[in-house]
Amino acid sequence: MRVSVRGRSRHYRTVSFDAAKNSVLLIEQRLLPHAFKIVATRDYRDTARAIRDMVVRGAGAIGATAAYGLAQGVRAFHGRDVGKFSAHVETVYQTLKAARPTAVDPVNAMDGVRRAMLAGETVAEHQALALVAAREFADADAAHCAAIGRHGAKLIRSGMTILTHCNAGWLAFVDIGSATAPLYAAQAQGKRFHVLCDETRPRSQGATLTAWELSQQKIPHHIIADNAAGHLMARGEIDLVIVGSDRTLGRTGEVANKIGTYTKAVLAKRHGIPFYVAIPFSTIDWDLKSGRAIPIEERDGSEVLGAWGVNRRGRREYVRVANPGSGARNPGFDVTPPDLITGIITPIGIFKPRHLRASRRKLGFDGKPNPKGA
Amino acid sequence: MRVSVRGRSRHYRTVSFDAAKNSVLLIEQRLLPHAFKIVATRDYRDTARAIRDMVVRGAGAIGATAAYGLAQGVRAFHGRDVGKFSAHVETVYQTLKAARPTAVDPVNAMDGVRRAMLAGETVAEHQALALVAAREFADADAAHCAAIGRHGAKLIRSGMTILTHCNAGWLAFVDIGSATAPLYAAQAQGKRFHVLCDETRPRSQGATLTAWELSQQKIPHHIIADNAAGHLMARGEIDLVIVGSDRTLGRTGEVANKIGTYTKAVLAKRHGIPFYVAIPFSTIDWDLKSGRAIPIEERDGSEVLGAWGVNRRGRREYVRVANPGSGARNPGFDVTPPDLITGIITPIGIFKPRHLRASRRKLGFDGKPNPKGA
Repeated sequence: MRVSVRGRSRHYRTVSFDAAKNSVLLIEQRLLPHAFKIVATRDYRDTARAIRDMVVRGAGAIGATAAYGLAQGVRAFHGRDVGKFSAHVETVYQTLKAARPTAVDPVNAMDGVRRAMLAGETVAEHQALALVAAREFADADAAHCAAIGRHGAKLIRSGMTILTHCNAGWLAFVDIGSATAPLYAAQAQGKRFHVLCDETRPRSQGATLTAWELSQQKIPHHIIADNAAGHLMARGEIDLVIVGSDRTLGRTGEVANKIGTYTKAVLAKRHGIPFYVAIPFSTIDWDLKSGRAIPIEERDGSEVLGAWGVNRRGRREYVRVANPGSGARNPGFDVTPPDLITGIITPIGIFKPRHLRASRRKLGFDGKPNPKGA
Repeated sequence: MRVSVRGRSRHYRTVSFDAAKNSVLLIEQRLLPHAFKIVATRDYRDTARAIRDMVVRGAGAIGATAAYGLAQGVRAFHGRDVGKFSAHVETVYQTLKAARPTAVDPVNAMDGVRRAMLAGETVAEHQALALVAAREFADADAAHCAAIGRHGAKLIRSGMTILTHCNAGWLAFVDIGSATAPLYAAQAQGKRFHVLCDETRPRSQGATLTAWELSQQKIPHHIIADNAAGHLMARGEIDLVIVGSDRTLGRTGEVANKIGTYTKAVLAKRHGIPFYVAIPFSTIDWDLKSGRAIPIEERDGSEVLGAWGVNRRGRREYVRVANPGSGARNPGFDVTPPDLITGIITPIGIFKPRHLRASRRKLGFDGKPNPKGA
């Protein structure tokens, strides 16, 4: 997407690769929305650190970072000994995998790169193929998001107010995003609409990342407290809800996403407001049989007990808001059942949640998702 | 309620009066939960400033502060000229009224004090009667809250987890509170239960004031993000919801309260969890015919865009959390319809919201609420 830095606007991807310098280029997301900076990793270990330390976050974005990181490590090998080369590839792979052990996207992305390398014979051929495959992975991620945008934009009419929760924006992917993709596509079609960003406590991704993205794209928006959406729905001020997902169960149509998503779905149902979930193929889990089986991470209480922000002197700082003698509970995600979801927006169209399963082949499964299908 | 200061526990009211020094004593609520301090106002102007500057907040608490402030001003008059005295009383009354122009409680409280003064003839008699009446007002507020506690405690069983929103605690009244009263009464009866405090963004009264109160009373509790209650209800971890109210419509049973209350009521309904509202008589509005007619204050966006807390160096500070280029919408209250409310806990018992109207005479109306009825 386009970003304006010191008055100059240009296109950036969240993750890209500088082949001449053999370096992965990342938007330093920990500084957003208060500063915009591109970091270039020196080597694959540095790339692994960037994943681990949350320089880059979001399913598609860390997948692409790992794929590029693997190519980066592979290309740094000197020599022609295929045996030593194989051992090196394994080291790079394991280092990057260990950077975010619970995520599935980096593993899937790197497995794709390794499969592509099998077509080569010499070290040089393997190295060239690795970079081609990493680029294809990143391009496919962006293409899938663009396709989500094309399908989702049909839901948006001029004059609408659209609510979103957390950040399923282009910062979480290589480009365009999932929940934000329909917004960007509708804007490109000349539609004029208004977005409300749930603050999304406790980590405030809505107030920081989504609001920053929308500012950059000049989409009119306001931030609201997570408490306010119910009131605004009751007053008829919200027409449509679009959110992302961390894991969507293909068998049941249940959607795991950032804590608070379920609440918005319950409210939307009461008020007859359409509630959509936008996801790329990689978000679908075809194995789990029930949302009850999704592990809900209980995060550190300090997130709830205070806030990170910028003080009067322009310095980033954590302040404790809560009573010092009190603790917090902090579940990070919740599960929304299919009866509350109007539709799931995928790269190949919009499905009723319960129809995902019947559309399994169409969605590119079994077998790998098919980027060309997008 | 009892407060522990530097290891010593004693009973404090939110508002009280020192007759010897002719001074209103207030808990400095702006410092909570990070410091506990009692301030003594020098004169009625100082008391008016304390109301205006939010040293004291909450319906019952500012009512009692105004009543005491009026007695304080009246008692400071020197001389026997009843004409000059009357003019002085009017000045004191108007000064205190202007300190929080939209609130109805200070006016009602001061009108009661003035009515009581009519029984006197000399200046000295008027002065004595004013203080007696102010004390009666404060005692009645505390008695009403205690009665709410007695009725509400019947809803609480050992082992329950109870959700509350915002602060309708003793800090908002002279003592005991409305939504918290059943908790304190149940605790006194030896029941053991757990409380979840909604953070209550954007002003975080749940994380600060309610959590502080519960800590002082040694009631086990955790703070949760406003986003988390839906998930916890879905997992069967919440048994009962009790909230307060800023205005309850006697004609319709609609309840205006802090933004986010409506959302919790919708969630409770979906999960079959009892949802109660605890109110003293003064919260009932017998005039308005519809919740749509309740003006919803749109507060300053800065509340949503950042947070007040204490930094690492122990200093109170505001940090901007949100994207600097983005604005906020900030409705302060919402309206919960009667179909979502299991019952209204009043000083004389628990009513179905739609039965408030039929119970108007029982509730002490028309005519003034009757403290002895509590």
